[in-house]
Amino acid sequence: MTDRRLFTEEGSAQVVIDSLGADTDPRLRKILTSLIHHLHDFVKEVQLTEAEWDEGIDFLTRTGHTCNDVRQEFILLSDVLGVSMLVETINHRAFGHATEQTVLGPFHMVDSPPRELGDTIALDDGGEPCLVTGQVRSSDGTPLAGASVDVWQANAEGFYDVQQPGIQPELNLRGLFTADDEGKFWFRSIVPRYYPIPDDGPVGEFLATTGRHPNRPAHVHFIVTADGHEPVTTHLFVEGTPYIDSDVVFGVKESLIREFPVVDDPERAAALGLDNPFRTVHFDVTLLEAQSKEA
Amino acid sequence: MTDRRLFTEEGSAQVVIDSLGADTDPRLRKILTSLIHHLHDFVKEVQLTEAEWDEGIDFLTRTGHTCNDVRQEFILLSDVLGVSMLVETINHRAFGHATEQTVLGPFHMVDSPPRELGDTIALDDGGEPCLVTGQVRSSDGTPLAGASVDVWQANAEGFYDVQQPGIQPELNLRGLFTADDEGKFWFRSIVPRYYPIPDDGPVGEFLATTGRHPNRPAHVHFIVTADGHEPVTTHLFVEGTPYIDSDVVFGVKESLIREFPVVDDPERAAALGLDNPFRTVHFDVTLLEAQSKEA
Repeated sequence: MTDRRLFTEEGSAQVVIDSLGADTDPRLRKILTSLIHHLHDFVKEVQLTEAEWDEGIDFLTRTGHTCNDVRQEFILLSDVLGVSMLVETINHRAFGHATEQTVLGPFHMVDSPPRELGDTIALDDGGEPCLVTGQVRSSDGTPLAGASVDVWQANAEGFYDVQQPGIQPELNLRGLFTADDEGKFWFRSIVPRYYPIPDDGPVGEFLATTGRHPNRPAHVHFIVTADGHEPVTTHLFVEGTPYIDSDVVFGVKESLIREFPVVDDPERAAALGLDNPFRTVHFDVTLLEAQSKEA
Repeated sequence: MTDRRLFTEEGSAQVVIDSLGADTDPRLRKILTSLIHHLHDFVKEVQLTEAEWDEGIDFLTRTGHTCNDVRQEFILLSDVLGVSMLVETINHRAFGHATEQTVLGPFHMVDSPPRELGDTIALDDGGEPCLVTGQVRSSDGTPLAGASVDVWQANAEGFYDVQQPGIQPELNLRGLFTADDEGKFWFRSIVPRYYPIPDDGPVGEFLATTGRHPNRPAHVHFIVTADGHEPVTTHLFVEGTPYIDSDVVFGVKESLIREFPVVDDPERAAALGLDNPFRTVHFDVTLLEAQSKEA
Protein backbone atom coordinates (compact mmCIF):
# COMPACT_ATOMS: atom_id res chain seq x y z
CA MET A 1 0.00 0.00 0.00
CA THR A 2 2.87 2.36 0.87
CA ASP A 3 6.62 2.06 1.26
CA ARG A 4 6.41 2.15 5.03
CA ARG A 5 9.10 0.04 6.64
CA LEU A 6 6.96 -1.83 9.11
CA PHE A 7 7.78 -4.82 11.28
CA THR A 8 8.17 -8.20 9.59
CA GLU A 9 9.38 -11.47 11.03
CA GLU A 10 12.23 -11.71 8.54
CA GLY A 11 13.44 -8.14 8.95
CA SER A 12 12.60 -7.75 12.62
CA ALA A 13 16.08 -6.89 13.93
CA GLN A 14 16.80 -4.45 11.11
CA VAL A 15 13.56 -2.51 11.70
CA VAL A 16 14.59 -1.98 15.33
CA ILE A 17 18.15 -1.02 14.38
CA ASP A 18 16.81 1.41 11.78
CA SER A 19 14.83 3.12 14.52
CA LEU A 20 18.02 4.27 16.27
CA GLY A 21 18.51 8.00 15.73
CA ALA A 22 21.24 9.34 13.47
CA ASP A 23 22.93 11.07 16.40
CA THR A 24 23.26 7.90 18.47
CA ASP A 25 26.78 7.57 19.84
CA PRO A 26 28.69 5.30 17.40
CA ARG A 27 29.93 2.93 20.10
CA LEU A 28 26.43 2.62 21.58
CA ARG A 29 25.05 1.98 18.10
CA LYS A 30 27.59 -0.78 17.56
CA ILE A 31 26.72 -2.43 20.88
CA LEU A 32 22.96 -2.15 20.32
CA THR A 33 23.18 -3.40 16.74
CA SER A 34 24.93 -6.56 17.91
CA LEU A 35 22.64 -6.96 20.92
CA ILE A 36 19.43 -6.56 18.88
CA HIS A 37 20.62 -9.02 16.21
CA HIS A 38 21.51 -11.63 18.83
CA LEU A 39 18.29 -11.13 20.81
CA HIS A 40 16.12 -11.55 17.72
CA ASP A 41 18.18 -14.48 16.44
CA PHE A 42 17.79 -16.16 19.82
CA VAL A 43 13.98 -15.76 19.79
CA LYS A 44 13.79 -17.12 16.24
CA GLU A 45 16.24 -19.95 16.78
CA VAL A 46 14.28 -21.40 19.70
CA GLN A 47 10.85 -20.20 18.44
CA LEU A 48 10.20 -18.78 21.89
CA THR A 49 6.61 -19.29 23.03
CA GLU A 50 4.57 -16.60 24.75
CA ALA A 51 4.58 -18.61 27.99
CA GLU A 52 8.39 -18.82 27.86
CA TRP A 53 8.64 -15.09 27.19
CA ASP A 54 6.38 -14.51 30.23
CA GLU A 55 8.69 -16.68 32.31
CA GLY A 56 11.71 -14.74 31.10
CA ILE A 57 10.11 -11.40 31.98
CA ASP A 58 9.18 -12.75 35.40
CA PHE A 59 12.70 -14.09 36.00
CA LEU A 60 14.32 -10.76 35.10
CA THR A 61 11.82 -8.87 37.26
CA ARG A 62 12.45 -11.06 40.29
CA THR A 63 16.21 -10.79 39.70
CA GLY A 64 15.85 -7.00 39.76
CA HIS A 65 13.75 -7.09 42.90
CA THR A 66 16.40 -9.24 44.64
CA CYS A 67 19.03 -6.54 44.11
CA ASN A 68 19.57 -4.19 47.05
CA ASP A 69 22.39 -2.31 48.77
CA VAL A 70 24.19 -5.47 49.80
CA ARG A 71 23.21 -7.92 47.08
CA GLN A 72 23.64 -7.75 43.31
CA GLU A 73 21.66 -10.59 41.75
CA PHE A 74 22.27 -9.42 38.15
CA ILE A 75 26.04 -9.64 38.69
CA LEU A 76 25.47 -13.10 40.14
CA LEU A 77 23.45 -14.01 37.03
CA SER A 78 26.23 -12.68 34.80
CA ASP A 79 28.70 -14.73 36.87
CA VAL A 80 26.90 -18.07 36.59
CA LEU A 81 26.36 -17.55 32.84
CA GLY A 82 30.12 -17.08 32.38
CA VAL A 83 29.60 -13.52 31.12
CA SER A 84 31.54 -11.84 33.94
CA MET A 85 34.51 -14.13 33.37
CA LEU A 86 34.36 -13.54 29.63
CA VAL A 87 34.36 -9.75 30.05
CA GLU A 88 37.22 -10.09 32.53
CA THR A 89 39.20 -12.30 30.15
CA ILE A 90 38.65 -10.10 27.09
CA ASN A 91 39.75 -6.99 28.94
CA HIS A 92 42.79 -8.51 30.63
CA ARG A 93 44.39 -10.93 28.25
CA ALA A 94 47.61 -12.20 29.78
CA PHE A 95 50.76 -11.47 27.85
CA GLY A 96 53.80 -13.74 28.08
CA HIS A 97 54.35 -14.82 31.65
CA ALA A 98 52.17 -12.17 33.27
CA THR A 99 49.89 -13.47 36.02
CA GLU A 100 46.39 -14.15 34.73
CA GLN A 101 43.43 -12.19 36.06
CA THR A 102 40.19 -13.57 37.35
CA VAL A 103 36.98 -12.09 38.74
CA LEU A 104 37.05 -9.56 41.59
CA GLY A 105 34.04 -11.06 43.35
CA PRO A 106 31.65 -9.24 45.65
CA PHE A 107 33.59 -9.41 48.93
CA HIS A 108 36.25 -6.73 48.42
CA MET A 109 33.83 -4.31 50.03
CA VAL A 110 36.07 -2.99 52.83
CA ASP A 111 39.66 -1.70 52.67
CA SER A 112 42.17 -4.29 53.79
CA PRO A 113 44.12 -3.20 56.90
CA PRO A 114 47.83 -2.45 56.31
CA ARG A 115 49.96 -5.17 57.91
CA GLU A 116 53.67 -5.98 58.30
CA LEU A 117 55.29 -8.82 56.35
CA GLY A 118 54.99 -11.97 58.45
CA ASP A 119 51.85 -10.82 60.24
CA THR A 120 48.87 -13.12 60.41
CA ILE A 121 45.59 -12.12 58.84
CA ALA A 122 43.69 -14.81 60.80
CA LEU A 123 42.23 -12.94 63.75
CA ASP A 124 40.34 -15.86 65.26
CA ASP A 125 40.94 -19.54 65.87
CA GLY A 126 40.14 -22.41 63.56
CA GLY A 127 41.42 -23.63 60.25
CA GLU A 128 44.69 -25.15 59.15
CA PRO A 129 47.55 -22.66 59.63
CA CYS A 130 49.30 -21.68 56.43
CA LEU A 131 52.36 -19.68 55.41
CA VAL A 132 51.86 -17.74 52.17
CA THR A 133 55.01 -16.58 50.34
CA GLY A 134 55.70 -15.08 46.95
CA GLN A 135 57.57 -12.53 44.89
CA VAL A 136 56.33 -9.74 42.64
CA ARG A 137 58.30 -9.21 39.45
CA SER A 138 58.04 -7.28 36.22
CA SER A 139 57.59 -9.25 33.00
CA ASP A 140 61.37 -9.05 32.34
CA GLY A 141 62.03 -10.68 35.71
CA THR A 142 63.02 -7.53 37.62
CA PRO A 143 61.85 -7.75 41.25
CA LEU A 144 59.36 -5.00 42.06
CA ALA A 145 60.43 -3.59 45.42
CA GLY A 146 57.61 -2.12 47.46
CA ALA A 147 54.82 -3.68 45.41
CA SER A 148 51.45 -3.59 47.14
CA VAL A 149 49.77 -6.96 47.85
CA ASP A 150 46.12 -6.80 48.91
CA VAL A 151 44.69 -10.16 50.07
CA TRP A 152 41.32 -11.35 51.36
CA GLN A 153 39.79 -14.77 51.79
CA ALA A 154 37.03 -16.87 53.37
CA ASN A 155 37.58 -18.67 56.66
CA ALA A 156 37.72 -22.42 57.29
CA GLU A 157 33.90 -22.55 57.17
CA GLY A 158 33.73 -20.73 53.83
CA PHE A 159 32.53 -17.33 55.07
CA TYR A 160 34.00 -13.86 54.64
CA ASP A 161 34.13 -11.53 57.65
CA VAL A 162 31.46 -9.25 56.13
CA GLN A 163 29.06 -12.19 55.94
CA GLN A 164 29.39 -12.90 59.66
CA PRO A 165 29.45 -9.61 61.56
CA GLY A 166 29.57 -10.33 65.29
CA ILE A 167 30.80 -13.87 64.64
CA GLN A 168 34.10 -13.14 62.89
CA PRO A 169 36.31 -10.25 64.11
CA GLU A 170 36.17 -7.18 61.86
CA LEU A 171 38.68 -7.30 59.00
CA ASN A 172 39.38 -10.98 59.65
CA LEU A 173 41.41 -12.62 56.88
CA ARG A 174 42.22 -9.36 55.10
CA GLY A 175 45.60 -7.66 54.78
CA LEU A 176 47.44 -5.05 52.74
CA PHE A 177 51.15 -5.88 52.53
CA THR A 178 54.12 -4.03 51.07
CA ALA A 179 56.69 -6.28 49.39
CA ASP A 180 60.33 -5.97 50.49
CA ASP A 181 63.31 -4.73 48.45
CA GLU A 182 63.30 -7.93 46.42
CA GLY A 183 59.56 -7.78 45.77
CA LYS A 184 59.02 -10.61 48.24
CA PHE A 185 56.00 -10.93 50.50
CA TRP A 186 55.02 -13.41 53.19
CA PHE A 187 52.25 -13.64 55.73
CA ARG A 188 50.41 -16.12 57.88
CA SER A 189 46.83 -17.21 57.34
CA ILE A 190 44.66 -20.32 57.30
CA VAL A 191 43.59 -22.49 54.35
CA PRO A 192 40.23 -21.15 53.10
CA ARG A 193 37.27 -23.39 52.40
CA TYR A 194 35.13 -23.59 49.26
CA TYR A 195 31.74 -21.87 49.63
CA PRO A 196 28.37 -21.40 47.91
CA ILE A 197 27.37 -18.12 46.30
CA PRO A 198 24.05 -16.76 47.62
CA ASP A 199 21.55 -19.29 46.28
CA ASP A 200 18.26 -18.32 47.90
CA GLY A 201 17.20 -16.03 45.01
CA PRO A 202 16.35 -16.37 41.31
CA VAL A 203 19.95 -17.30 40.43
CA GLY A 204 19.82 -20.10 43.00
CA GLU A 205 16.57 -21.31 41.41
CA PHE A 206 18.25 -21.23 38.02
CA LEU A 207 21.15 -23.33 39.30
CA ALA A 208 18.80 -25.84 40.93
CA THR A 209 16.65 -26.12 37.80
CA THR A 210 19.71 -26.84 35.68
CA GLY A 211 21.26 -29.30 38.12
CA ARG A 212 24.22 -27.06 38.99
CA HIS A 213 25.75 -26.73 42.46
CA PRO A 214 26.32 -23.18 43.78
CA ASN A 215 29.94 -23.57 44.96
CA ARG A 216 33.24 -21.86 44.34
CA PRO A 217 36.46 -23.81 44.96
CA ALA A 218 38.70 -22.59 47.84
CA HIS A 219 40.78 -19.53 46.93
CA VAL A 220 42.62 -16.49 48.24
CA HIS A 221 41.97 -13.16 46.49
CA PHE A 222 44.86 -10.92 45.45
CA ILE A 223 45.14 -7.44 43.98
CA VAL A 224 48.80 -6.70 43.27
CA THR A 225 49.98 -3.26 42.16
CA ALA A 226 53.39 -1.68 41.53
CA ASP A 227 54.56 1.64 40.12
CA GLY A 228 54.77 1.65 36.36
CA HIS A 229 52.86 -1.61 36.02
CA GLU A 230 49.35 -2.80 35.25
CA PRO A 231 47.64 -4.02 38.42
CA VAL A 232 46.40 -7.60 38.54
CA THR A 233 43.19 -8.79 40.22
CA THR A 234 43.34 -12.53 40.67
CA HIS A 235 42.85 -15.61 42.87
CA LEU A 236 45.21 -18.24 44.21
CA PHE A 237 43.30 -21.55 44.08
CA VAL A 238 43.96 -24.45 46.44
CA GLU A 239 44.93 -27.61 44.52
CA GLY A 240 42.64 -30.45 45.58
CA THR A 241 39.79 -28.26 46.79
CA PRO A 242 36.29 -29.53 45.95
CA TYR A 243 34.75 -27.88 42.88
CA ILE A 244 38.10 -26.95 41.31
CA ASP A 245 36.72 -28.42 38.04
CA SER A 246 33.30 -26.82 38.31
CA ASP A 247 33.55 -23.31 39.81
CA VAL A 248 29.99 -21.96 39.56
CA VAL A 249 31.34 -18.63 38.24
CA PHE A 250 33.98 -20.21 35.94
CA GLY A 251 36.82 -18.26 37.63
CA VAL A 252 39.46 -21.01 37.72
CA LYS A 253 42.50 -20.79 35.46
CA GLU A 254 45.03 -23.59 35.44
CA SER A 255 47.90 -21.13 35.98
CA LEU A 256 46.36 -19.94 39.26
CA ILE A 257 46.17 -23.33 41.04
CA ARG A 258 48.89 -24.12 43.60
CA GLU A 259 49.68 -27.03 45.89
CA PHE A 260 49.48 -26.20 49.60
CA PRO A 261 51.92 -28.86 50.92
CA VAL A 262 51.97 -29.82 54.60
CA VAL A 263 55.16 -29.04 56.55
CA ASP A 264 55.84 -30.97 59.76
CA ASP A 265 58.70 -29.00 61.37
CA PRO A 266 58.10 -27.94 64.99
CA GLU A 267 61.10 -25.62 65.06
CA ARG A 268 60.18 -23.76 61.89
CA ALA A 269 56.57 -23.58 63.04
CA ALA A 270 57.64 -22.06 66.33
CA ALA A 271 59.90 -19.54 64.58
CA LEU A 272 57.02 -18.50 62.31
CA GLY A 273 54.48 -18.41 65.12
CA LEU A 274 52.36 -21.20 63.60
CA ASP A 275 50.97 -24.41 65.07
CA ASN A 276 52.75 -27.52 63.81
CA PRO A 277 52.13 -29.09 61.32
CA PHE A 278 51.25 -26.26 58.94
CA ARG A 279 50.76 -25.79 55.23
CA THR A 280 52.62 -23.56 52.83
CA VAL A 281 51.99 -22.06 49.44
CA HIS A 282 54.16 -20.03 47.13
CA PHE A 283 52.60 -17.62 44.63
CA ASP A 284 54.84 -15.57 42.36
CA VAL A 285 53.15 -12.66 40.63
CA THR A 286 54.34 -11.14 37.35
CA LEU A 287 53.03 -7.72 36.32
CA LEU A 288 53.03 -6.19 32.86
CA GLU A 289 54.70 -2.84 32.44
CA ALA A 290 52.09 -0.12 32.15
CA GLN A 291 50.98 0.55 28.56
CA SER A 292 52.79 -2.54 27.32
CA LYS A 293 49.39 -3.76 26.13
CA GLU A 294 49.45 -0.98 23.59
CA ALA A 295 52.70 -2.24 22.09
CA MET B 1 48.68 -29.93 33.73
CA THR B 2 45.41 -31.88 33.85
CA ASP B 3 42.52 -32.43 31.50
CA ARG B 4 40.27 -30.12 33.46
CA ARG B 5 37.85 -28.30 31.19
CA LEU B 6 38.36 -24.80 32.51
CA PHE B 7 37.19 -21.49 31.12
CA THR B 8 38.89 -20.17 28.00
CA GLU B 9 37.98 -17.20 25.85
CA GLU B 10 37.55 -19.38 22.77
CA GLY B 11 35.43 -22.05 24.44
CA SER B 12 33.62 -19.79 26.90
CA ALA B 13 30.03 -20.56 25.85
CA GLN B 14 30.63 -24.31 25.63
CA VAL B 15 32.07 -24.46 29.15
CA VAL B 16 28.90 -22.86 30.50
CA ILE B 17 26.65 -25.12 28.41
CA ASP B 18 28.61 -28.17 29.60
CA SER B 19 27.87 -27.17 33.18
CA LEU B 20 24.12 -27.78 32.69
CA GLY B 21 23.10 -30.96 34.47
CA ALA B 22 22.18 -34.11 32.56
CA ASP B 23 18.62 -33.99 33.92
CA THR B 24 17.95 -30.47 32.67
CA ASP B 25 14.60 -30.32 30.86
CA PRO B 26 15.37 -30.71 27.14
CA ARG B 27 13.40 -27.62 26.10
CA LEU B 28 15.11 -25.52 28.79
CA ARG B 29 18.48 -26.87 27.66
CA LYS B 30 17.72 -25.87 24.08
CA ILE B 31 16.70 -22.36 25.13
CA LEU B 32 19.72 -21.89 27.41
CA THR B 33 22.16 -23.27 24.84
CA SER B 34 21.00 -20.72 22.28
CA LEU B 35 20.87 -17.90 24.86
CA ILE B 36 24.38 -18.59 26.20
CA HIS B 37 25.87 -18.80 22.70
CA HIS B 38 24.27 -15.50 21.69
CA LEU B 39 25.23 -13.75 24.94
CA HIS B 40 28.87 -14.79 24.64
CA ASP B 41 28.99 -14.02 20.91
CA PHE B 42 27.60 -10.55 21.66
CA VAL B 43 30.27 -9.84 24.28
CA LYS B 44 33.02 -11.03 21.94
CA GLU B 45 31.67 -9.28 18.86
CA VAL B 46 31.64 -5.85 20.52
CA GLN B 47 34.59 -6.61 22.85
CA LEU B 48 32.51 -5.30 25.73
CA THR B 49 34.55 -3.24 28.20
CA GLU B 50 34.23 -3.58 31.96
CA ALA B 51 32.71 -0.09 32.17
CA GLU B 52 30.08 -1.03 29.58
CA TRP B 53 29.32 -4.25 31.46
CA ASP B 54 28.89 -2.16 34.63
CA GLU B 55 26.47 0.11 32.79
CA GLY B 56 24.51 -2.89 31.54
CA ILE B 57 24.21 -4.36 35.04
CA ASP B 58 23.11 -0.97 36.36
CA PHE B 59 20.52 -0.57 33.57
CA LEU B 60 19.00 -4.01 34.22
CA THR B 61 18.96 -3.36 37.97
CA ARG B 62 17.18 -0.02 37.58
CA THR B 63 14.75 -1.61 35.12
CA GLY B 64 13.94 -4.25 37.75
CA HIS B 65 13.52 -1.64 40.46
CA THR B 66 11.08 0.30 38.23
CA CYS B 67 8.75 -2.73 38.03
CA ASN B 68 5.87 -2.74 40.50
CA ASP B 69 2.23 -3.81 40.69
CA VAL B 70 1.12 -1.32 38.04
CA ARG B 71 4.23 -0.98 35.89
CA GLN B 72 6.24 -3.59 34.00
CA GLU B 73 9.44 -1.95 32.76
CA PHE B 74 10.95 -5.22 31.45
CA ILE B 75 7.92 -5.73 29.18
CA LEU B 76 8.36 -2.14 28.03
CA LEU B 77 12.03 -2.88 27.31
CA SER B 78 11.07 -6.00 25.37
CA ASP B 79 8.52 -3.88 23.48
CA VAL B 80 10.91 -1.12 22.40
CA LEU B 81 13.52 -3.71 21.34
CA GLY B 82 10.95 -5.35 19.06
CA VAL B 83 11.16 -8.60 21.03
CA SER B 84 7.51 -8.59 22.15
CA MET B 85 6.32 -8.06 18.60
CA LEU B 86 8.64 -10.81 17.35
CA VAL B 87 7.33 -13.32 19.91
CA GLU B 88 3.79 -12.28 19.01
CA THR B 89 4.46 -12.71 15.30
CA ILE B 90 6.19 -16.08 15.63
CA ASN B 91 3.38 -17.48 17.73
CA HIS B 92 0.50 -16.13 15.63
CA ARG B 93 1.50 -16.28 12.02
CA ALA B 94 -1.44 -15.24 9.90
CA PHE B 95 -2.72 -17.81 7.46
CA GLY B 96 -4.48 -16.82 4.25
CA HIS B 97 -6.84 -13.91 4.87
CA ALA B 98 -6.97 -14.26 8.65
CA THR B 99 -6.72 -10.99 10.54
CA GLU B 100 -3.17 -10.37 11.72
CA GLN B 101 -2.37 -10.19 15.42
CA THR B 102 -0.44 -7.50 17.19
CA VAL B 103 0.64 -6.86 20.78
CA LEU B 104 -1.89 -6.95 23.63
CA GLY B 105 -0.39 -3.95 25.40
CA PRO B 106 -0.57 -3.21 29.12
CA PHE B 107 -4.00 -1.55 29.31
CA HIS B 108 -6.34 -4.55 29.10
CA MET B 109 -6.22 -4.68 32.87
CA VAL B 110 -9.96 -4.50 33.57
CA ASP B 111 -12.84 -6.51 32.06
CA SER B 112 -14.69 -4.58 29.39
CA PRO B 113 -18.35 -3.97 30.30
CA PRO B 114 -20.89 -5.88 28.16
CA ARG B 115 -22.75 -3.44 25.86
CA GLU B 116 -25.48 -3.61 23.23
CA LEU B 117 -24.70 -3.19 19.53
CA GLY B 118 -24.96 0.51 18.73
CA ASP B 119 -24.08 1.64 22.26
CA THR B 120 -21.41 4.23 22.75
CA ILE B 121 -18.27 3.40 24.70
CA ALA B 122 -17.40 7.11 25.13
CA LEU B 123 -18.69 7.96 28.59
CA ASP B 124 -17.45 11.55 28.66
CA ASP B 125 -17.29 14.48 26.28
CA GLY B 126 -14.50 15.36 23.91
CA GLY B 127 -13.04 13.84 20.79
CA GLU B 128 -14.35 13.41 17.29
CA PRO B 129 -17.40 11.14 17.27
CA CYS B 130 -16.94 7.93 15.30
CA LEU B 131 -19.06 5.01 14.17
CA VAL B 132 -17.18 1.69 14.17
CA THR B 133 -18.63 -1.14 12.06
CA GLY B 134 -17.40 -4.55 10.99
CA GLN B 135 -18.15 -8.20 10.45
CA VAL B 136 -16.57 -11.31 11.92
CA ARG B 137 -16.14 -14.23 9.52
CA SER B 138 -14.44 -17.57 9.38
CA SER B 139 -11.56 -18.01 6.93
CA ASP B 140 -13.94 -19.56 4.38
CA GLY B 141 -16.13 -16.45 4.53
CA THR B 142 -18.89 -17.85 6.76
CA PRO B 143 -20.26 -15.10 9.05
CA LEU B 144 -19.67 -15.96 12.72
CA ALA B 145 -22.96 -15.21 14.48
CA GLY B 146 -22.58 -14.27 18.13
CA ALA B 147 -18.83 -13.64 17.93
CA SER B 148 -17.48 -11.72 20.91
CA VAL B 149 -15.80 -8.36 20.19
CA ASP B 150 -13.85 -6.84 23.08
CA VAL B 151 -12.63 -3.27 22.41
CA TRP B 152 -10.67 -0.69 24.39
CA GLN B 153 -8.92 2.51 23.39
CA ALA B 154 -7.33 5.76 24.56
CA ASN B 155 -9.32 8.99 24.61
CA ALA B 156 -8.80 12.11 22.48
CA GLU B 157 -5.91 13.14 24.74
CA GLY B 158 -4.16 9.78 24.43
CA PHE B 159 -4.97 8.37 27.88
CA TYR B 160 -6.72 5.17 28.94
CA ASP B 161 -9.31 5.30 31.73
CA VAL B 162 -7.00 3.40 34.09
CA GLN B 163 -4.36 6.08 33.68
CA GLN B 164 -6.74 8.83 34.76
CA PRO B 165 -8.84 7.57 37.66
CA GLY B 166 -11.10 10.39 38.86
CA ILE B 167 -10.64 12.26 35.58
CA GLN B 168 -12.16 9.77 33.16
CA PRO B 169 -15.28 7.80 34.14
CA GLU B 170 -14.60 4.20 35.10
CA LEU B 171 -14.61 1.81 32.12
CA ASN B 172 -14.55 4.73 29.69
CA LEU B 173 -13.87 3.67 26.11
CA ARG B 174 -14.20 -0.05 26.79
CA GLY B 175 -16.92 -2.40 25.60
CA LEU B 176 -17.67 -6.08 25.12
CA PHE B 177 -20.04 -6.61 22.19
CA THR B 178 -21.77 -9.67 20.80
CA ALA B 179 -22.00 -9.76 17.00
CA ASP B 180 -25.44 -10.26 15.42
CA ASP B 181 -26.64 -13.25 13.38
CA GLU B 182 -24.52 -12.16 10.44
CA GLY B 183 -21.43 -11.67 12.58
CA LYS B 184 -21.83 -7.91 12.29
CA PHE B 185 -20.96 -5.46 15.05
CA TRP B 186 -21.29 -1.69 15.36
CA PHE B 187 -20.78 0.81 18.16
CA ARG B 188 -20.14 4.48 18.75
CA SER B 189 -16.89 5.88 20.06
CA ILE B 190 -14.45 8.73 19.43
CA VAL B 191 -11.23 8.76 17.40
CA PRO B 192 -8.36 7.91 19.74
CA ARG B 193 -5.14 9.90 19.87
CA TYR B 194 -1.55 8.64 19.64
CA TYR B 195 0.23 8.54 23.01
CA PRO B 196 3.63 8.02 24.61
CA ILE B 197 4.47 4.87 26.54
CA PRO B 198 5.69 5.60 30.11
CA ASP B 199 9.04 7.27 29.46
CA ASP B 200 10.15 8.48 32.89
CA GLY B 201 12.12 5.29 33.65
CA PRO B 202 15.16 3.43 32.28
CA VAL B 203 13.35 2.59 29.03
CA GLY B 204 12.58 6.29 28.53
CA GLU B 205 16.28 7.05 29.08
CA PHE B 206 17.17 4.41 26.53
CA LEU B 207 14.81 5.96 23.97
CA ALA B 208 16.17 9.47 24.63
CA THR B 209 19.79 8.27 24.36
CA THR B 210 19.08 6.65 21.01
CA GLY B 211 17.09 9.56 19.60
CA ARG B 212 13.80 7.68 19.56
CA HIS B 213 10.40 9.20 20.40
CA PRO B 214 8.20 7.26 22.87
CA ASN B 215 4.93 7.33 20.89
CA ARG B 216 2.46 4.81 19.62
CA PRO B 217 0.22 5.76 16.66
CA ALA B 218 -3.53 6.07 17.37
CA HIS B 219 -5.30 2.70 17.53
CA VAL B 220 -8.29 0.79 18.90
CA HIS B 221 -7.60 -2.57 20.57
CA PHE B 222 -9.66 -5.63 19.68
CA ILE B 223 -9.87 -9.17 21.00
CA VAL B 224 -12.29 -11.15 18.83
CA THR B 225 -13.36 -14.68 19.72
CA ALA B 226 -15.87 -17.15 18.28
CA ASP B 227 -16.69 -20.78 18.97
CA GLY B 228 -14.48 -23.21 17.08
CA HIS B 229 -12.03 -20.50 16.07
CA GLU B 230 -8.66 -19.16 17.18
CA PRO B 231 -9.09 -15.83 18.97
CA VAL B 232 -7.31 -12.79 17.56
CA THR B 233 -5.71 -10.01 19.61
CA THR B 234 -5.10 -7.03 17.40
CA HIS B 235 -5.32 -3.26 16.80
CA LEU B 236 -7.18 -1.13 14.31
CA PHE B 237 -4.82 1.73 13.37
CA VAL B 238 -6.00 5.15 12.25
CA GLU B 239 -4.67 6.01 8.78
CA GLY B 240 -2.90 9.37 8.93
CA THR B 241 -2.15 9.28 12.65
CA PRO B 242 1.27 10.62 13.65
CA TYR B 243 3.88 7.90 14.22
CA ILE B 244 2.17 5.34 11.97
CA ASP B 245 5.62 4.74 10.41
CA SER B 246 7.52 4.65 13.69
CA ASP B 247 5.47 2.95 16.41
CA VAL B 248 7.84 2.76 19.39
CA VAL B 249 6.80 -0.87 19.99
CA PHE B 250 6.74 -1.86 16.29
CA GLY B 251 3.10 -2.99 16.51
CA VAL B 252 1.85 -1.62 13.18
CA LYS B 253 0.99 -4.00 10.36
CA GLU B 254 -0.10 -2.64 7.00
CA SER B 255 -3.20 -4.86 6.99
CA LEU B 256 -4.46 -3.27 10.22
CA ILE B 257 -4.53 0.37 9.04
CA ARG B 258 -7.91 1.82 8.06
CA GLU B 259 -9.16 5.17 6.81
CA PHE B 260 -11.56 6.95 9.19
CA PRO B 261 -13.46 9.08 6.63
CA VAL B 262 -15.56 12.08 7.71
CA VAL B 263 -19.31 11.88 7.12
CA ASP B 264 -21.31 15.12 6.99
CA ASP B 265 -24.93 13.93 7.18
CA PRO B 266 -27.05 15.55 9.91
CA GLU B 267 -29.92 13.08 9.48
CA ARG B 268 -27.75 9.98 9.74
CA ALA B 269 -25.86 11.54 12.65
CA ALA B 270 -29.13 12.18 14.47
CA ALA B 271 -30.35 8.64 13.79
CA LEU B 272 -27.11 7.22 15.21
CA GLY B 273 -27.03 9.57 18.15
CA LEU B 274 -23.79 11.22 17.04
CA ASP B 275 -22.85 14.88 16.60
CA ASN B 276 -22.52 15.91 12.96
CA PRO B 277 -20.09 15.69 11.21
CA PHE B 278 -18.72 12.36 12.41
CA ARG B 279 -16.15 9.83 11.27
CA THR B 280 -16.59 6.19 10.38
CA VAL B 281 -14.40 3.15 10.13
CA HIS B 282 -15.07 -0.39 8.96
CA PHE B 283 -13.02 -3.30 10.25
CA ASP B 284 -13.77 -6.81 9.07
CA VAL B 285 -12.20 -9.57 11.14
CA THR B 286 -11.42 -13.05 9.82
CA LEU B 287 -10.72 -15.85 12.29
CA LEU B 288 -8.94 -19.14 11.64
CA GLU B 289 -10.78 -22.31 12.48
CA ALA B 290 -9.38 -23.80 15.67
CA GLN B 291 -6.50 -26.24 15.11
CA SER B 292 -6.20 -25.21 11.47
CA LYS B 293 -2.63 -24.16 12.31
CA GLU B 294 -1.79 -27.80 12.74
CA ALA B 295 -2.79 -28.63 9.18
